[in-house]
Amino acid sequence: MTNHIEKALTAKGINLPTPAAPVASYVPAVEVNGLIHISGQVSMNDGQLITGRLGDNMSLEEGQQAAKACALMVAAQIMKAAGSLDRVDRIVKLGVFVNSTADYTDHPKVANGCSDMMEVIFGAAGQHARSAVGVASLPLGVAVEVDAIIALKPE
Amino acid sequence: MTNHIEKALTAKGINLPTPAAPVASYVPAVEVNGLIHISGQVSMNDGQLITGRLGDNMSLEEGQQAAKACALMVAAQIMKAAGSLDRVDRIVKLGVFVNSTADYTDHPKVANGCSDMMEVIFGAAGQHARSAVGVASLPLGVAVEVDAIIALKPE
Amino acid sequence: MTNHIEKALTAKGINLPTPAAPVASYVPAVEVNGLIHISGQVSMNDGQLITGRLGDNMSLEEGQQAAKACALMVAAQIMKAAGSLDRVDRIVKLGVFVNSTADYTDHPKVANGCSDMMEVIFGAAGQHARSAVGVASLPLGVAVEVDAIIALKPE
Repeated sequence: MTNHIEKALTAKGINLPTPAAPVASYVPAVEVNGLIHISGQVSMNDGQLITGRLGDNMSLEEGQQAAKACALMVAAQIMKAAGSLDRVDRIVKLGVFVNSTADYTDHPKVANGCSDMMEVIFGAAGQHARSAVGVASLPLGVAVEVDAIIALKPE
Repeated sequence: MTNHIEKALTAKGINLPTPAAPVASYVPAVEVNGLIHISGQVSMNDGQLITGRLGDNMSLEEGQQAAKACALMVAAQIMKAAGSLDRVDRIVKLGVFVNSTADYTDHPKVANGCSDMMEVIFGAAGQHARSAVGVASLPLGVAVEVDAIIALKPE
Repeated sequence: MTNHIEKALTAKGINLPTPAAPVASYVPAVEVNGLIHISGQVSMNDGQLITGRLGDNMSLEEGQQAAKACALMVAAQIMKAAGSLDRVDRIVKLGVFVNSTADYTDHPKVANGCSDMMEVIFGAAGQHARSAVGVASLPLGVAVEVDAIIALKPE
């Protein structure tokens, strides 16, 4: 593997985090029929959880940073599961769960923090389907959680 | 393509809406391995968002109308992505997110507004697996959001 | 079919529930391309709904029991759809929705009630990707809802 995408990211100053171990009884990724299903990745940066609730104690920009951190964590899990980001054929679907108050309405802008980073990393292959919803609470109080379905190129 | 289903819908007086452009950095549909993943479609009618919260300022019937509007929007996205509704082999899975208060319990009845319309449109091929949950808030304050996985017939 | 897994469960004193009929206009399971998509299964035991909200009127242990009940219901639906649990190649993905207050943070521990039971039932094939989120409310007031994607062995 030549790891073109990883090298391009490093050249842009983007470093992938260490893929987080599951906080529970499951695995980070399952591959079947050429698709990888990535477990929900919670927002963390440099090993620190990014906690908070949109509409309450967190600005839009902070929410976008949390969503971006989830994108990097998803990429780190793909890297670990597939061996190289170059194997990604398409980011198929992202499920974005935003920790929000009942009157919050800017979930799409928050989720763009994740979606935009996918395009930075994978280019056209990073263009994905997506759902974004506001949830009552998230594991460990994090601001954003993202799960994903990824299509791989044949080995 | 002969567009039998579209003609049958028109005969029933059902017109599909213009498929909405994503409100953010993603695409409405991604096809891989014969499956289309449709992005979360928010409730809108005639280009107007259907906003509200079940258990608060919206009746069950209004919630069902919002869910039905999501079904039509999903169908419009399928039409755009696949060229014809006749290509649908099966509606595989719907994820129905209902904007609700903490004490709301009738999510299945709300979601039926979407599920029933899928069967009106696609007949037996419209019978799907489904999850329906109550979320704290949704993009732009809409009442219902629905994402979907659709199996296509081979071209 | 020899039903090895069912016999092993019975030997352990674990009996699968009667698979619940959908509470609405959809089907419990759809199989396509060797994957079964299982509709959201709500927490119930002996035909009684397990209702409640984590962080409010339910302990962690009660939440885990609710999540375990969802796992058994998912297995019952697999059994009904596939004819035997022995046909399971892999539990691919679980979506765990926990009825929770805004300040609840232990969703992963609750969801483990489901994940751990999957490994009891299916062994290594039960190791799955997972998302776990806290939702504002769930159908009929149940504590936990779980949907699933299952890969089958070729017949």
